[in-house]
Amino acid sequence: MSDRIANAQLRNKVMTAAEAAQFVNHGDKVGISGFTGAGYPKALPTAIAERAKEAHARGDEYMIDLFTGASTAPDCDGVLAEADAIHFRTPYQSDPILRSKINDGTSYYMDYHLSESGMYVQQGFFGQMNVAIVEAVRITEEGHIVPSSSVGNNVEYLDAAEKIIIEVNSWQSEELEGMADIYRIAPLPNRQPIPITEPGQRIGNTYIDIDLDKVVAVVETDAPDRNAPFKPIDDQSKQIAGHFLDFLEGEVRAGRLTYDGYIMQSGVGNVPNAVMSGLLDSKFENIKAYTEVIQDGMVDLIDAGKMTVASATSFSLSPEYAERMNKEASKYRETIILRPQQVSNHPEVVRRLGLICTNGLIEADIYGNVNSTNVVGSRMMNGVGGSADFTRNGLVSSFITPSDAKGGAISAIVPMVSHVDHTEQDVKVIITEYGYADLRGLAPRQKVEKMIALAHPDYRPMLQDYYDRALAEAKANKTMQTPHLLDEALSFHQRFKETGSMKLS
Amino acid sequence: MSDRIANAQLRNKVMTAAEAAQFVNHGDKVGISGFTGAGYPKALPTAIAERAKEAHARGDEYMIDLFTGASTAPDCDGVLAEADAIHFRTPYQSDPILRSKINDGTSYYMDYHLSESGMYVQQGFFGQMNVAIVEAVRITEEGHIVPSSSVGNNVEYLDAAEKIIIEVNSWQSEELEGMADIYRIAPLPNRQPIPITEPGQRIGNTYIDIDLDKVVAVVETDAPDRNAPFKPIDDQSKQIAGHFLDFLEGEVRAGRLTYDGYIMQSGVGNVPNAVMSGLLDSKFENIKAYTEVIQDGMVDLIDAGKMTVASATSFSLSPEYAERMNKEASKYRETIILRPQQVSNHPEVVRRLGLICTNGLIEADIYGNVNSTNVVGSRMMNGVGGSADFTRNGLVSSFITPSDAKGGAISAIVPMVSHVDHTEQDVKVIITEYGYADLRGLAPRQKVEKMIALAHPDYRPMLQDYYDRALAEAKANKTMQTPHLLDEALSFHQRFKETGSMKLS
Repeated sequence: MSDRIANAQLRNKVMTAAEAAQFVNHGDKVGISGFTGAGYPKALPTAIAERAKEAHARGDEYMIDLFTGASTAPDCDGVLAEADAIHFRTPYQSDPILRSKINDGTSYYMDYHLSESGMYVQQGFFGQMNVAIVEAVRITEEGHIVPSSSVGNNVEYLDAAEKIIIEVNSWQSEELEGMADIYRIAPLPNRQPIPITEPGQRIGNTYIDIDLDKVVAVVETDAPDRNAPFKPIDDQSKQIAGHFLDFLEGEVRAGRLTYDGYIMQSGVGNVPNAVMSGLLDSKFENIKAYTEVIQDGMVDLIDAGKMTVASATSFSLSPEYAERMNKEASKYRETIILRPQQVSNHPEVVRRLGLICTNGLIEADIYGNVNSTNVVGSRMMNGVGGSADFTRNGLVSSFITPSDAKGGAISAIVPMVSHVDHTEQDVKVIITEYGYADLRGLAPRQKVEKMIALAHPDYRPMLQDYYDRALAEAKANKTMQTPHLLDEALSFHQRFKETGSMKLS
Repeated sequence: MSDRIANAQLRNKVMTAAEAAQFVNHGDKVGISGFTGAGYPKALPTAIAERAKEAHARGDEYMIDLFTGASTAPDCDGVLAEADAIHFRTPYQSDPILRSKINDGTSYYMDYHLSESGMYVQQGFFGQMNVAIVEAVRITEEGHIVPSSSVGNNVEYLDAAEKIIIEVNSWQSEELEGMADIYRIAPLPNRQPIPITEPGQRIGNTYIDIDLDKVVAVVETDAPDRNAPFKPIDDQSKQIAGHFLDFLEGEVRAGRLTYDGYIMQSGVGNVPNAVMSGLLDSKFENIKAYTEVIQDGMVDLIDAGKMTVASATSFSLSPEYAERMNKEASKYRETIILRPQQVSNHPEVVRRLGLICTNGLIEADIYGNVNSTNVVGSRMMNGVGGSADFTRNGLVSSFITPSDAKGGAISAIVPMVSHVDHTEQDVKVIITEYGYADLRGLAPRQKVEKMIALAHPDYRPMLQDYYDRALAEAKANKTMQTPHLLDEALSFHQRFKETGSMKLS
């Protein structure tokens, strides 16, 4: 047995994943570790999926309600979705098989703010949680759990669940111990200010203390996180990143930012990675991140001495960078802090620190409303994730996107978004390869020209034509706040559904 | 000269409103006091409007950018709008003349979160503020300003403006001194936790300290706030209030709330007043309010000993209650605290305290998205106000509304809202005279039945028919997250535009 299980009581609970899965019953609410492919349980999901398949083969029902930190991996969300074992899922996902099960109606999906999902469990709004399944680097002599490569909602699930299953994964470096900063936000009515006034402060423990009597099983694993490579940075991403850096430089020129005052929040992806690559060669120094996820580009900034603190709740690294993190965790834990997602994304801290936030989008409209979740209004892509936690409360909230998608068939700028995740009040800057639109301090009509200039040239005349006619009608009807033609507002999307392209044929 | 101006330097600045208005120039950014008709400057707006009219008569341009706390009054927003003197307005308004000027395109309106507007000024996102015009109860010997019946964004405007004009209004009771609790949220990068852990804590001063050298004028006034009577509580409001109280009782039964644990945020209006009337006869005790505005119903709760603390940034009282407040301010200031709106609405405090929030709406859709601002998608009513500050960060965010409007021509429940101010993630409970829909923990499709049950019976079959057909299409297309028929989603609104009613003829 692994010496990573130092507590005697819990050593007695070691068993196989198949044995442990017997504690997970049909209808259970199951809260697991895992955030962007890091730190999810590696064995139980497959074992639970097997139970589900066996039950279904017998003609029995077997589905669970699955709560995570955020997205997980094919050997977690994927196997469970494939076994039709997920009845309800929250707060975020990105697995292709699960996505298809959500969109075909097999699974219900409550797309929800990542900062609120743990609080929701704490306050009992989901009812009783039955099982928590959490991956650990090791279990201490006292029975404390040292979380692995993500913290997510571990604390809330471990506190709330009736039963606990721990996976101890020997693939995860033991040197990760010390990276986590576990701070419990008290349930009501005892909440106190969160004492973080800069991203690098540690305010808690390196472990999670749990009720040992709730532990029903400990399972040993040795399996890697789901770490996918980033694409090489292409020209379009470089252009978008360049415009973002121009925006930052403009803030410095305006006296609203200093070269050592940039506190970053960044969504995950190839364009954000290009932004970080651009920052390597910029005048910005002492960059701090208060964000959800550490990705490759941040590690490069840390290595280059450009980023001095990175606070997050998880990693999303390429296989190469994940290996490096595992090897050199004792070095990186000087700079990197992993917090519970209720803390990493907390409105209180986000607002206090003055973050410059950067997230992706599916589409934005001419008045700056943003859709981050539902393609053509109805088909779920991934979810809102933490984007709204940061966008609503950040100092300057920006969105970066190529101006089109699907070879030009979809415009990222539309007359009216088909689903709203970020309102016109919250969206401050939008950036495409054609430049940036600074929407701060503008009324809706004052935003339109800037937004149309961000669109792909093929779509600009269509957008201008829509706005011109909407404006003429609004003048006549005295509805000038946000001119729209209601019978055409969603026509780009309707055309895409009918013809496969938003373009006029 | 009034003995309310105790500072010698400022006594030398006393002049008429017409003289003071000469300091306000075309193109100026002018930040004024005033929130829901309380504490706005009574003389300068008319004097500025006169300047504008004279300039326009000469063929000269004269318009200002006007920043307030929230809505003001006919003798403030109204006179300025009538004189076509408002080029840009933020963050909230409700004046009929100004509204018509916004909707006919004369004035630009940036509808904005009340908690963020002051911060936006602090951080320089609007550029240099030129003039602050603030109503005071009195000026102390040191030259400190004692705010009158609202605090709003006074601190931020006084700090940021190049010139200050103070109106000392002898109509306002001097006993209001002590009600305000002035706490400055430091600009970045020096922000600290706001040390409020319960609604009744006082954390600041009773006055605003200012740079005396910026004061260009002091004007004496003796004029009442705009205090409009509330309507008598009608049966429908009573029904809605009854369902809200049922919801609260349900929370107690579920163990998520105690009879002495209700912390209220409430929008202003007749239905909220009915809720407060209902609370008078309820089992709830020691009710606390952490809200924007003190209205009649809260005063009744205080008088009855049911409400022990009311924290807000302003009053919105009927004339009768305003008179009582003025007479008995020394008594009420034991229970009532007026804070800067950046504090009264701050996401940090709202989240920490665990507010049960209740606001009005224009329309909600079958998936729980809420439109609070734009009628039929384009015509501005009032604005988002503080509703999003509270809705996003509150513990349970509810919306209360009659199921229809305009004699049944408008349904409050529609297939898709024509403008989104509160996203499906944020809206937890919706209440009409037909009951309450508890949307917590539900995926979009799970919400639909509950939402349709809230609609007026005349509209239920239309909504059900829309959803049935959207669901069938979504099943075929595998777009089951949020089924919509894009070419019909806004058809209720289109029909209203064309026929004057959302009903099928």
